[in-house]
Formats: sequence, structure tokens, C-alpha cells
Amino acid sequence: MKLSKQQIAYLNEKQLKSHQSRWNILKDQLEEKDVDVNGMLKQVRAFQIAIPSWALGTGGTRFGRFPAGGAPRDLEEKMYDIGLLHALNRSSGAISLHIPWDIPENAGHIKTLAKELGLRFDAVNSNTFQDQPDQKYSYRYGSLCHTNKAVRDQAIAHNLAVVKYGVELGTNVLSVWLSDGAIFPGQHNIRKALQRTMDSLQEIYKGMPDNFEMLVEYKPFEPAFYATVIPDWGTSFLLVNKLGERAKTLVDLGHHLPNTNIEQIVSTLLAERKLGGFHFNDSKYADDDLTTGSIKPYQLFLIFHELVEGLKSQNHPMQYLSWMIDASHNIKDPLEDLLQSVEAIKLAFAQALLVDENKLMESQEQNDPVSAQEILQDAFRTDLRPLIAEARLQEGGALDPIGVYRTLNVRKELIRQRGDKTVATGL
Amino acid sequence: MKLSKQQIAYLNEKQLKSHQSRWNILKDQLEEKDVDVNGMLKQVRAFQIAIPSWALGTGGTRFGRFPAGGAPRDLEEKMYDIGLLHALNRSSGAISLHIPWDIPENAGHIKTLAKELGLRFDAVNSNTFQDQPDQKYSYRYGSLCHTNKAVRDQAIAHNLAVVKYGVELGTNVLSVWLSDGAIFPGQHNIRKALQRTMDSLQEIYKGMPDNFEMLVEYKPFEPAFYATVIPDWGTSFLLVNKLGERAKTLVDLGHHLPNTNIEQIVSTLLAERKLGGFHFNDSKYADDDLTTGSIKPYQLFLIFHELVEGLKSQNHPMQYLSWMIDASHNIKDPLEDLLQSVEAIKLAFAQALLVDENKLMESQEQNDPVSAQEILQDAFRTDLRPLIAEARLQEGGALDPIGVYRTLNVRKELIRQRGDKTVATGL
Amino acid sequence: MKLSKQQIAYLNEKQLKSHQSRWNILKDQLEEKDVDVNGMLKQVRAFQIAIPSWALGTGGTRFGRFPAGGAPRDLEEKMYDIGLLHALNRSSGAISLHIPWDIPENAGHIKTLAKELGLRFDAVNSNTFQDQPDQKYSYRYGSLCHTNKAVRDQAIAHNLAVVKYGVELGTNVLSVWLSDGAIFPGQHNIRKALQRTMDSLQEIYKGMPDNFEMLVEYKPFEPAFYATVIPDWGTSFLLVNKLGERAKTLVDLGHHLPNTNIEQIVSTLLAERKLGGFHFNDSKYADDDLTTGSIKPYQLFLIFHELVEGLKSQNHPMQYLSWMIDASHNIKDPLEDLLQSVEAIKLAFAQALLVDENKLMESQEQNDPVSAQEILQDAFRTDLRPLIAEARLQEGGALDPIGVYRTLNVRKELIRQRGDKTVATGL
Amino acid sequence: MKLSKQQIAYLNEKQLKSHQSRWNILKDQLEEKDVDVNGMLKQVRAFQIAIPSWALGTGGTRFGRFPAGGAPRDLEEKMYDIGLLHALNRSSGAISLHIPWDIPENAGHIKTLAKELGLRFDAVNSNTFQDQPDQKYSYRYGSLCHTNKAVRDQAIAHNLAVVKYGVELGTNVLSVWLSDGAIFPGQHNIRKALQRTMDSLQEIYKGMPDNFEMLVEYKPFEPAFYATVIPDWGTSFLLVNKLGERAKTLVDLGHHLPNTNIEQIVSTLLAERKLGGFHFNDSKYADDDLTTGSIKPYQLFLIFHELVEGLKSQNHPMQYLSWMIDASHNIKDPLEDLLQSVEAIKLAFAQALLVDENKLMESQEQNDPVSAQEILQDAFRTDLRPLIAEARLQEGGALDPIGVYRTLNVRKELIRQRGDKTVATGL
Repeated sequence: MKLSKQQIAYLNEKQLKSHQSRWNILKDQLEEKDVDVNGMLKQVRAFQIAIPSWALGTGGTRFGRFPAGGAPRDLEEKMYDIGLLHALNRSSGAISLHIPWDIPENAGHIKTLAKELGLRFDAVNSNTFQDQPDQKYSYRYGSLCHTNKAVRDQAIAHNLAVVKYGVELGTNVLSVWLSDGAIFPGQHNIRKALQRTMDSLQEIYKGMPDNFEMLVEYKPFEPAFYATVIPDWGTSFLLVNKLGERAKTLVDLGHHLPNTNIEQIVSTLLAERKLGGFHFNDSKYADDDLTTGSIKPYQLFLIFHELVEGLKSQNHPMQYLSWMIDASHNIKDPLEDLLQSVEAIKLAFAQALLVDENKLMESQEQNDPVSAQEILQDAFRTDLRPLIAEARLQEGGALDPIGVYRTLNVRKELIRQRGDKTVATGL
Repeated sequence: MKLSKQQIAYLNEKQLKSHQSRWNILKDQLEEKDVDVNGMLKQVRAFQIAIPSWALGTGGTRFGRFPAGGAPRDLEEKMYDIGLLHALNRSSGAISLHIPWDIPENAGHIKTLAKELGLRFDAVNSNTFQDQPDQKYSYRYGSLCHTNKAVRDQAIAHNLAVVKYGVELGTNVLSVWLSDGAIFPGQHNIRKALQRTMDSLQEIYKGMPDNFEMLVEYKPFEPAFYATVIPDWGTSFLLVNKLGERAKTLVDLGHHLPNTNIEQIVSTLLAERKLGGFHFNDSKYADDDLTTGSIKPYQLFLIFHELVEGLKSQNHPMQYLSWMIDASHNIKDPLEDLLQSVEAIKLAFAQALLVDENKLMESQEQNDPVSAQEILQDAFRTDLRPLIAEARLQEGGALDPIGVYRTLNVRKELIRQRGDKTVATGL
Repeated sequence: MKLSKQQIAYLNEKQLKSHQSRWNILKDQLEEKDVDVNGMLKQVRAFQIAIPSWALGTGGTRFGRFPAGGAPRDLEEKMYDIGLLHALNRSSGAISLHIPWDIPENAGHIKTLAKELGLRFDAVNSNTFQDQPDQKYSYRYGSLCHTNKAVRDQAIAHNLAVVKYGVELGTNVLSVWLSDGAIFPGQHNIRKALQRTMDSLQEIYKGMPDNFEMLVEYKPFEPAFYATVIPDWGTSFLLVNKLGERAKTLVDLGHHLPNTNIEQIVSTLLAERKLGGFHFNDSKYADDDLTTGSIKPYQLFLIFHELVEGLKSQNHPMQYLSWMIDASHNIKDPLEDLLQSVEAIKLAFAQALLVDENKLMESQEQNDPVSAQEILQDAFRTDLRPLIAEARLQEGGALDPIGVYRTLNVRKELIRQRGDKTVATGL
Repeated sequence: MKLSKQQIAYLNEKQLKSHQSRWNILKDQLEEKDVDVNGMLKQVRAFQIAIPSWALGTGGTRFGRFPAGGAPRDLEEKMYDIGLLHALNRSSGAISLHIPWDIPENAGHIKTLAKELGLRFDAVNSNTFQDQPDQKYSYRYGSLCHTNKAVRDQAIAHNLAVVKYGVELGTNVLSVWLSDGAIFPGQHNIRKALQRTMDSLQEIYKGMPDNFEMLVEYKPFEPAFYATVIPDWGTSFLLVNKLGERAKTLVDLGHHLPNTNIEQIVSTLLAERKLGGFHFNDSKYADDDLTTGSIKPYQLFLIFHELVEGLKSQNHPMQYLSWMIDASHNIKDPLEDLLQSVEAIKLAFAQALLVDENKLMESQEQNDPVSAQEILQDAFRTDLRPLIAEARLQEGGALDPIGVYRTLNVRKELIRQRGDKTVATGL
């Protein structure tokens, strides 16, 4: 299913007047405060968040799964779904592949389709946390950290195969998430498991083309419930420092212990030039993988504030980092869920752009936390939705993406085309 | 596969002498301190922990599953596995069925087999957290709390069907765990969802025979990630109080927020006569479902201390409550995992029996926390393994259950009989 | 120091025009969506949050304290400070006394002053978590839970003395927070400590006048680090149910284990007619006692959403509950901190009033979490600050309370009057 | 108050026989399993844990303090208290000074006294988390991270003054714990605050003698409640790596977010040669500062297992690291509390020594977590108290330190000498 710009423009018409009015008011209010509205608009228009190929179907927990129907049956259908999202919000113009869930058998064909849909390929992701039917060795007791060199070699080879797919598709980032770890005390020697993981990563790193970047993700628990090999940013940082300049840390918002100050981790990694990318989602308890912004929107804003301020201090553009959504859509329509997530991310980004950094710096120099809070909350409390809508409009997207999605009965249509019982590859 | 008492006695022989020596030493040491050793032994010998029918196969997380092979293919094979455990440790003489995973089609036959294996039937468990193929309505948005009365009625009917199976098998406890809840803020009206759940439970309660007990479990999150309908002991307590005398709360050790004082919950529920049963497991992060005693053995002891002291103050025997293991065996052989769990539970129970309650009460009256700690830790630090082994021996079990299990190559034999790729029903 | 309405009106003048413009725009936008703007305004104007007498000075942690100077030296000066807050924001028209920190020696005089400042007396608070110089028995090992009846009697008598002060001042609510608990396992018998606490509370309850309400607070830890006697809402609920109709639970936002869903507790207590009051603050880690709304503003909104919807469903006005700030001002100017807290509370209240409850109910009935989220976030993302300002303006308060406070150099003036080294009673 | 070896020997007499019997039995049992009992004994005899000068008095929380009486009034009295502990347990032969709480005005005299009591000086600790009466600049908004260079310089000078005291006393370790951090979002620029802290630490590092080591502690929160400058091991690791070879990380058991795997941090830091020292205590909720081993004794054992195995793999002796107790004695007699802590530490150490590392390695190589757990728990469950007692006996200490302490009515005697109302410097 494809949406044309004309179709969207037509559906925008009804809301156009009321949008213009709201947008003009906001613009005036911001300009009165000497905000560079066009600069903000430009940045929001350019911001792109990759959609992972595994996020187009219904997710599940170990307790069950309730499929919504119409799930994409292959990579092409997944790309059409992302194309649809991108047509609606103009910010989902990138796709992140997960191998072996979505092997691009015919790279040429896939690239042509991507071009047609306006998508580029973002980070490629390896998977050594599951066994595949044709696999020689099991990852039951780990992959890159395994005590058996043959298992490690198999996992290394898989990662290099993933890199090869990436090269074919024209991307240059490999994202590595390992579930490797001990589920029980004593199961492995913590020091040696880390050392073996380091050695394996080094082999992968050496096998990548010179322009390839490796992102090393961390996670405290699940599925390893005692000692995950890379549990926290500190361990990832230790590894990427040893690996080399093109190895960096990837932050997934859901991969932290309770109460962790994530924005501080972001700031520190950025300052050390070791922040490589982001997996967006939200959570209340653990790695809940909920819609971004649905639980802690203020934290999301604070994280973006660190990102915007930190990247600016290094003269880096936002797209210097890899941005990706990584959520599980257990009961929401996956496409609606993704639209909500992207919207929340863009809103947090715009709020962060609105922060008066000079005034904030002044408050900080004067140790005036009352005023610093007023400045941050002023940006957060300002209703920037008209600006996000305007950015979408100027890019040819929908004023109300979810509204259009529902008006067009997209899910019903997908179910008609693909059937009610399809299951997309993924978790 | 069945083990005879003779077989076990034969395998015990080699260790018998060394066991006797250790046991005699411990016995002497305890009697020197005026401990009623025979009383302890008697209680440990009698203590039984039910094995759930779903715990005999390899468990999994949403990220994958690594089957060990030889998993039981039907209820009978599951019962043989539990029979084997019971033959080894003499404390697993009860089975807890989960419907519809293990429907006892022919109750008469099943009861005969149970008798033969020395097993009785413990609590029956309903399942409205998954959709079954033949089900009319989906539980995607809840079961007993659902906004649609037809869905609630279906879930109520299922629970009553489970009760019926229980009646046929001669048990009188229904255990209800609901995954019902909101995954996102606003998804449901919290008050109304609780009220509907209450109403549904009431219908089930009324439909149970007069001698049936209902245990209402609580859990803070997973799979509902925002507001589970029964998230904590307080909500379960509120419900069971309204339901009636035969409704009680079930405590699963893994179903608590970080740092919760579980022993205090146990004590309070017991004092209010509303503690009904226990699901044993251990965890470091969330509902990790690890081997009982593998992470926090001291907490397990403290919980048992409350149970022993509390039940004694009400002149109730230990078997007044329903005891059950509820763990997930992701990488350990499920039967070995269960043997370790039961051992840890019995050890904690014995340690709790060893606490000098009179002296402890004296320390408490005198507000002497130093001395209270010495008394508790004296019991915990005493090595009571010879007593547990002696209790097993006197009951005809193995001195070293895991040792015997390995000597007999049980897993290999099960794989030979059942195959490498079998998957048991369960999570 | 006192502020007159004229003074404030004068200081409002400069911002009046710009405020009117913003307010008119918001009003139009809301009315376009059929919002009852006047109804909202009326409710926000009427909403009052009590200021505790101990929150006017600099707070501290066990690691140190950094006084800001100008702290009130006695109850009268504290009342002047609250009068000043109320003059600025018109929502702090109540004071909550803490005995023995602020004993109203001369009730008549104090009441006259309160009247003059436009303040009424809210809940009175007892203190049995500290020893006072003239005290016969120490609370080192607890107060209402103590093993020694004489200590319990002393604590009971203190609570009744506090009630008496309350009667004299014309209030009818006693708020009880106990630090009673065990710091180490075994220190006390959990069951008996709870029973003794229950008995003590009962004596206090019986000693209160017939129109008096008792609010029972809960807290999981600090200063008791193992088993606080009233650790959670469930235990408080159990107690207040036994005590009687005029006993209710008090929720302090900072008194929860990590990740607790507080809005759910609020909803359940409200449905059970056992929610009595609120202590506002914010926190990231534990009982951090930060400025309300400074860390989790969306959670604050969700809590207010439950309060508004729940009270409405029972036809209760907002003032049916006791609202109070309870924070610690470690590095912010206490008065500025309180102004920020009250502002955040009113904003969350107004956002909750803005939720389209009919549409939300419809989404809930249809199990449409995507739409439910849109409805909640629409209310949260709407910038209602002009409405809050308008409500203040109509009540004779300041358009920009912190701005006025700073313009008038209030802190400097207070330091001049009271000195640099004054320490207010409190924590 | 001083205890002679004769006095202790005399008090040991009554228990000697029963001890010998228990010890012989344990020795036989261990030797049967080919344990090098004498090697273990030797290591336990040699193990020393420093007592901090601030831990001899009653601690408190922000809610109050309940002094026990008899607290030491100056450094000399503190040293006598530690001497008493050391006489009893023979493992507390080191003192760690905290400046300015315990300034050794006359180093010569102090050193003579230390020698007399058998004590050496361990790490010296600086304090920039409190303001001292004579201080020019306040640390209200931080010390080494402060925006004002003059404040940073003051804090740097203080640290160097502490080093100087250390040199005079013959120690060569400086321990730095900073409370520096933001209490509110926006209060400081996270990146710049870290950079300023780094710069300040560098100045201190450069100012230390060449043989001096700097230990950098981390803590997630309290008293900074939003973003502590050094919140986790990763940040400390980052800093000490930049500082140089003689900078290392200090781990305090209570300074972690909920559920953190501390033993993994220990293992990783040790492997990276950046673990410098340890602060022992225990906790259930936050930085509770409870008696070591009173809440999570199995975790303590697992930590020691990593320490023993890790140090051995590098051929380092245990005393390669700085070991210190850091607890708060709120309701226990401080000296009894310290005796319990030291006992728990030595027990965990001995249990770790008992782990059969070869067998464990084999289990790990074979991916046999069941067997690995059996091996670890076998060591943990073995009752090694007779070995600890024997080690004490051989060193001339008391068989039952707390028993002797109580028999001699030490606290009563200290109160008689020093008075009931003394308050020791510290928290």
C-alpha cells in the first residue's frame, strides 16, 4: 500500500486552516521571544529516525502474543509499511535491518524499492541471541563470550556476514546487541567471559571495512538474569575504547536499572566522543519497550536537551548519531504505535531546541537552580505541536498522521491484502 | 522412567557412612544446644512442595528458547517426571495442574497413576493470559477485567471449568493469576477495571463448591507494563476480603517491586488469616523465575522464619498453606533445577525451625538488635544439610538427589525415550 | 514582611498586556474545543494547597545543611512567610502545623494573625520520630509500636495533645507519620509490632473529637531500613479500615518503592473511600523531597487525572481531600521552591480538568489505547500556563510570582530582618 | 579502656574446650575434602579491615539521632576504641582518618599511641561535602566541580592538606568521596561539571607524593538527588584512567542503584587493574549503611569470591586493596556493630577461600550451571565459624568478641568514663 503526496495533501485540506491559525500564533509567540523559528523548523524537517525491520508486526511477551493481523510477510512488505509511515510523517526515511530476520536476498532489487519509497538503510543488526534452524552450534550458553571457540567463531562469522549485507545496501554501521551472560552465579567466570567477548568483537571490528562503525549496546538483564556480559554503559565504554575509534556505545532507553539518570550517561558518552546511537522506547518497570514518550516525556526532553547541547558544542549535526526506534507493539497497531513514537521524539527534539541555552548557562554560572528549572520547563511546557505539524506539512507529510491512517482504513486494507494470521519476523 | 526405593537405597550405599558421620556430629551439636532434633526431622520429613505441570520443560524468554530435549509430551509423562523427583527427594509429592496446558481428559486414569507415583493434586491453575486456538473471544485486552461482558463470561466459565477438573482430581484449591491490566496510561479506567475484576471473581467464587479455596495472585508488571489490575498484596488483600473467607492471597516471590520486604508481607497476611499459598523461585531483577535460593538465600530464610513463627502462633501446621515451585528453567535441566529448588526450600525451612524463638523474643522485648541478629544468623549459618539428607534417607529418598540423577543419566534416557525436539506445554 | 494587593497589582501591570493576549488566545482555542473554560478557571481559582510550618527553612540531609539565611525564627514568622506566598499565588491559604516544632502557645493570637493573612489551619502533625529534650522515654526503638507500654502511652498522649492544639485552631484533621520499624531483621516481631501500632492508633482515634479525621501515612524505608511498621498503602489501608470511618490513608508521593504506580494507588484508595490526603513533592531515587513537578511532571498529571475523575465520580469537591506540600529545600530558596511546587500542582490539576473524559471513556470502552493516549497527551501538551496566571490574577495574585519575589528582593529583606544564621525548626 | 591478651585469654577459657571440639571436627571435614586448612587459616589470620575514625559514635539520619552514650570525644579516644576492637577480633588493626573530623594535631604522639595499640593508618579521607565554621567558601553548590574556581581551589587545597596529614602518619592512600552534583535538572551543565571535577582531581593527583594512591568513590544519589557528578563505576573508571596509574576506583557496597550486580563491577575493575578499595556495609533500599552481612550475606560471599579469584589470578595478596568498614550505627552499640561487621566479612572471605576453583572452572568450561551453583553453595553453606574463631584465637583474640564485650560491660564503662551525652565527630 502506497500513499501519494497528492492523496495526503488532499486529506490535509480540511485541517489546513485551523493549523495555519495555530501555527501563526505559535510562530508569533516564539519570534516575540527572539527564537530562530526558521532554524528550528529546518532542523525538525531534517530529523530522521530509522524504523527497524522487526517493528512492523505485533510483539509479544513470554506470556503470549495477540496478533493484530495484516503483518508484513517479507522484507518488501516491511519496506512498504515504512514507506507508508514516511509518507505520513516524513521523518521515518530510514530502515534498520535485522539479520537473519530480514535478509536482503536481492540487494539490487531492495535498493531500488528503497529509493522508490524514499528510504535509506541505517544500521544493520546481528542476532546471536536466538538459534536458527540451520545453525551448527547453539547460543544457549552465549555467543561471542562462549567458552567454546567454535561457537565464538560462528558468531563472529555471522556478524561479518551482516556487515556484508550492510555494505551491499550502502550502510556503514553495525549494531551489536548481545544477550550473552550468566543466568546464575558461578555459571561463567565474569572476567574471562568479558575478555572472550572483547576478543570476538575485535575480530569483527578488524573484519569490517574501514568506513564501518560498530555500535555496542548494553543491557543490565533479560534474558541473562544474573550477569549480562555487557550490562552497563561503563562496560560498553571500556570495550569500545579498546576496540578503536570507529567503535561506539549504543544507548537503548529501556536498558537501565531503576532510577538511572540516562541523560547523564548520554552527556558523558557524547563528551568522550563515544556515543554512537540511540534506541528509542519508553518504560515504567524494565525493558518494557513501550511507545516513546508514553511514560516519561520529561525525561525524553532532558535527554534531547543533552543531545542538542552536546552535539552543538562539538559542531556535530544531529544526524551524526544513529537514531532508531526499538519498541514492541503488543496491543497497539504497530504502525500507529510508531507514528506516536516518532511524534513524541520530534516534539522532545523541538522542545530541546527551544531551550534558551545562553540564559541557562547564566543560571548555571550563578548557581541558580530555580531559574534553571524555569528555563527548562518553559521550553517543555510550550506547546510546539503546531511547529511539528508545520514541519511535516512543508515536507509533504500529513498534518495528522494517525488521523489519515485511520481515515484510510490502512490496517483493514493490510489485513485484506495480507491476511489476518500473518506473523512478521521479529520478537 | 521410574525409580524404585531399592534402586535408590543401592545408590545411597556408598555415601551412607560419611553421611552417618556428619549427621551424628550435627545431631550431637544440636542436642547440646537443647534443640528438639527429632521434632525438626519430623517436620522436614513431612514437608511437601508441589511441582507445577508446566515446569518440567525448558522455559524461555521473549528473546528465545533453548530446549534441552526429553521434555514430557503429555500430562502422564509430566507426572512420571514429578514421580521421579519425588522418588529422589521425597518432598515433591504433589502436582499442580495448569489448564488448558494439561487437561486431565481421563480423571480416573490420571488419579490411578498419581496414586501409583505417590502424588496428590495440589491447586489447579486457570489461564486467561493467552488465547487458545478454539477460543471465541480474545484476551488481548484482558479477561476478568474486560470491558465486554461476553469476554468476562468466557473467562469466568473457563475458571469454573478448571474448578471442575480440580473436583474430579480431588483437590480443593483454585489459583488465579491474571495478566489483566493496562499497558499504557489511559488504556482503561483503573477503578472500573478493578471493579469488573472483583465482580468476575465473585461469580467464580460463588460457582465453586463449598470446600474450595480461591487463591488470588498479584504481580506488579509483565505482561501489563503500566497498571496491572492486581499489582500488589494490598489489592489482592482488598479483593479476598470482599470475596469471603475461602479467598486468600497467593505470594509469588518474584512478583514484587525492587527492594520489597516480602517477609513482612507474609507476616501481615498470615496475621490477617489471608495468606493462602506460595510460589517459590528467586530473582535478581524482576520476575526472573530462577532456581529458589540461588540468589537470595538469606531472604528465603527470613521468609520461612515468618512462616514458621506465624503459623505456630496460630497453631497451624505448615501444610495449612499451598506450597509450590514456580520457576522457568531456561538453561538448566528442568529436573535438576527443581531438585535444587526443593533442597533450598527445605534448608531454609529447617534453618527457620532452628531459630531459638524464646531467646529471640527476649532480645526483641529488650530491644537488643545485636543479639537478635546473632540468633537469626546462628540458625542460618549452621550447616543443616546433613539433617535434610537424613530426612530424605528416612523417607526412602536419595542422599544426593542430583548425584543419583546424573549417575543414572536420566536426561539422556528421557531424550532417548521422548526425543530431542519435544516441547512441553507451558511458557 | 507583607505584600498588599495594590503592590502586586502594580507589579502585574507591565506583564498585563502580554498576559491578556496569551490568555485570550488560549481561551479561544479551548472554547473552540467546547471546553468549559469558566468552569476550569473557577476550579483552579478555588484550589488551595497547605504549606507545612516546617517547610519555610532550609532543609538538609544527613550529610550536611547549607542555610540560605532569613529563616523564620518562630511560628509567627512562618505564618508571615506563608502569607507572602499566598499573597503571590492565592493558592497557599492554609498552614499545616507540626508539633512540637511549632506549638501555638497562644491560640487566640495565632488565629487572629491567620485571619489577617487569609490563612486557615489544615491538618496538625505529630512527631514521635525524634526525641525532645524534656521527654521521659526515648523513641530510639519506636513509639506507637514500642514493646514498652509506657513509651506507647507517651506517644499516644503526644498525639492527643496535638489533636488538642488542632481543636483550638479550628482544624479537624490529625496526620500521623511514624518512623517506627525495624532497622535489622529480627529486631522486632513484625506481627506484634503492627498489632501494638494498631492498638495505639485506636486509643488516639478514640480520644479524638467526633468530627476529627485521622490520616495514616505510609513509607517503605528511611529512617527504618529493614521493616517499617507501615511500609505501604496496603498496610495503611488495613489499619484505617479497622480504625473506623474517620481514619484514612495519606499518600506522600516520595514514599514508594522504585517504579510504583502511584496513580493506581490513588484510584483504588479513592474508590474505597479511604484516600484522605496528599503530600506533594517529587523524586528520582527515594524520598528525595524535591520540588513538585521538577522530575516527573507527566506522572503528576496522571495522578491528578485519577483524582479529578475519581472525586467527580463520587460527587466530591477537590477540597474533600487534604492537600499539602511536603518537600525539603536543600539548596533552593524555600519560598521560591514552594512557589514552583504550587505552580506545578495547579498546572497538573488544570491539565487533568482539560481531559475529555467522555472521549476517553469511549476509547476505553473500545479498547483503543492509541486514542486514549492521544486524549491524555493532548491535555498534557496544551500549554495552560496562561489559565493558571489568569486564575491568580482574578484572585488578586501575581502574574509572575517568582518574578515579583525577586523584584522585591524578598530573601534579602528577610535576611536583613531575621539575620543570616537563623535556623527554622524542622528537618 | 584497654584489654590485655591475658584478660582475653582468661575469658576464652570457658569456651575453649567446646571450641576445640568444633574446630577439630571442621578441620577433619575440610581436610577430608583436601582443603588446605592451614593456608586458609593463615589468610584469615592476616586479613585486616580498617575502621574509620567516624564510625565509633552513634550515627543518624536526617530524621533524628539517638545517641548511645560513651562516644569518644577525640581522636585518641577513638583510637582506644579501635584498639579495643582489635584486641577482641585481631582484624581491626588499621584506622582510617577523616579530615577535618579527626585532625591529628600531634602526629608523633598519635603514631606512638597507634603503635602501642597495634594499629596502622589506612587511607585518609577528605571532606568537601560539609561546610566547616572557618571556611571561606561554601560547598553548597559543589566543591571540585564548582563553577567558581576559588571554591575549587579551596577544595583542592583541603585535599592536599589531607594528603599531608597522611604523609605524617605514614599512610599513602587518599580516599575521595564527593557529594558534588545537581539536585535538579538544569542546575549544572553535566559535561562541564565532570570536566571541572576531572581538572580538580588532576591538580590533587599532581600534588600527591609519588608513592601516594588516590581512590575515587562513586555514588548514584544522596545528597545530590538528580545528577551526582561521579554516579557510577563507569564514571569513576573514566576519571581514574585519565588521572594515571596511581588513581583507582573505590567501591562502597551501598552506593548502587537497585539490583546492581556489584560482584561483576568488582571483577571488571580488578581485571582492569583499577580496583583500589572497598567500603563495607549492607543495605536493603539505598545507602542504608547497615551492618555488613546483615541483609545480603550471599551477595557478600559472591563479591569475595570475585575478589579472591581475581586477586589470585594477578598474584596479588588480599591486602593489595584497601578494606574499610563504612557504616552508620543508628541504634546498635557502634562497637558491637563493628564486631558483627568484621565477623561477617571474615566469614565471607573464608567461604570464598573454600570455593573449589578448579572444579568450578571445569563446570564453567562445560557450561554446567547446576554444578557451578552446587560448588559455590557448598562453600557458602559450610559452617566456617570455628575456623574464624580459631584464627582469632591463634592471634590472641577473643573466641566470642561480642560475648567478651558484654561480659566486661564495656559500654557501661565507657559511659562512666566519657559521659552519657558525648557526641563523636562524624555523621
